[in-house]
Amino acid sequence: MSFLESLNWRYAVKRMTGQKVPQEKVNIILEAARLAPTSAGLQPFSILVVTDPELLKKIQPVANNQPQITEASHLLVFAAWDNVSDQQIEEFMDRTIGERGLPAGSLDAFKDHLKRTFAAKTREERFQSAARQAYIAFGVAIAAAATEEVDATPMEGFNGPELDKLLGLEAKGLRSVTLLPLGYRDEENDWLAPLKKIRRPRKDLIIEIN
Amino acid sequence: MSFLESLNWRYAVKRMTGQKVPQEKVNIILEAARLAPTSAGLQPFSILVVTDPELLKKIQPVANNQPQITEASHLLVFAAWDNVSDQQIEEFMDRTIGERGLPAGSLDAFKDHLKRTFAAKTREERFQSAARQAYIAFGVAIAAAATEEVDATPMEGFNGPELDKLLGLEAKGLRSVTLLPLGYRDEENDWLAPLKKIRRPRKDLIIEIN
Repeated sequence: MSFLESLNWRYAVKRMTGQKVPQEKVNIILEAARLAPTSAGLQPFSILVVTDPELLKKIQPVANNQPQITEASHLLVFAAWDNVSDQQIEEFMDRTIGERGLPAGSLDAFKDHLKRTFAAKTREERFQSAARQAYIAFGVAIAAAATEEVDATPMEGFNGPELDKLLGLEAKGLRSVTLLPLGYRDEENDWLAPLKKIRRPRKDLIIEIN
Repeated sequence: MSFLESLNWRYAVKRMTGQKVPQEKVNIILEAARLAPTSAGLQPFSILVVTDPELLKKIQPVANNQPQITEASHLLVFAAWDNVSDQQIEEFMDRTIGERGLPAGSLDAFKDHLKRTFAAKTREERFQSAARQAYIAFGVAIAAAATEEVDATPMEGFNGPELDKLLGLEAKGLRSVTLLPLGYRDEENDWLAPLKKIRRPRKDLIIEIN
């Protein structure tokens, strides 16, 4: 399938079969998310990959009892940094200098600029900025799943604070922002399966200024 | 190239050649963004496609004088709804009912649920929610460009209110959230071209709970 055919093939599956997604395909989806670009390259988020059935059962009521939580093969939880600290910026710069073999101190101007940029924001603004970066990776992961013919249901309908408690995210400096169960569509039992994909027409969505 | 090879091929190009991207490829990138999933399917954003050279010259100083603004072939501006109104929800529901051939009124419960959900948020929260949806499409568009071997530079470094004024976005109920110039890398003049791509190692980014 072409990339557009894959995007047309995918939809927000409402019922999954429970069939396992091969680890190789999960790895491709996670690697795509890891390669997604982010502001300044910070990647201010983590992706939790939950397969523990007991934990998934506990997550389900926190996510509006959506059946895909337990019918999925893997549940991805995108969780953004709840802050962006100077230490995290230091670690990012050290890694960049190390991997690119740059002289120590050569990125100090960039580092100071980044620190000032984040210091000028409130903590909530830093989190919101981190959340947006997580959403870029989320979009790329959704596309990657489609190219692998793995179903993936983007899900914002859950209680964030409750999920954070279940996953111990506060201690990790994270807040959950969105979910992506991976699995396979159960076409017979999914009311959405036979329905036409609805999108705003191009003329409404796209504004050309030539 | 495989999808992962495409994501490894891409980088945030700092200098572009000015060469035009064929309209067919631009259309694929825009169609990918149009097909991106969004919360409830609302697609609460527009994508402006700017090719007018005079306007691009005016945008450049508002975007930290980044050269890609005028060296790109097309500048995509992702702009989120600055609010989510009952009328916009009504239009979405009417389109869904029309295209799926559903009985009038059959989505009333879903419609009322959506209206209540957005009414419970502040206007700023509605905008932030819309911005996140735009970022999903942004991520998908970045991936689409890579699969088409078109360079695309994700850009958050610009003055939003000033850009909104230049583009007349307030009157359209929109606020710019992120930019994506499309074009071709100028490898000789791009300092970033020879440098290694830096990403957090998988063991830092991914947390597995089995």
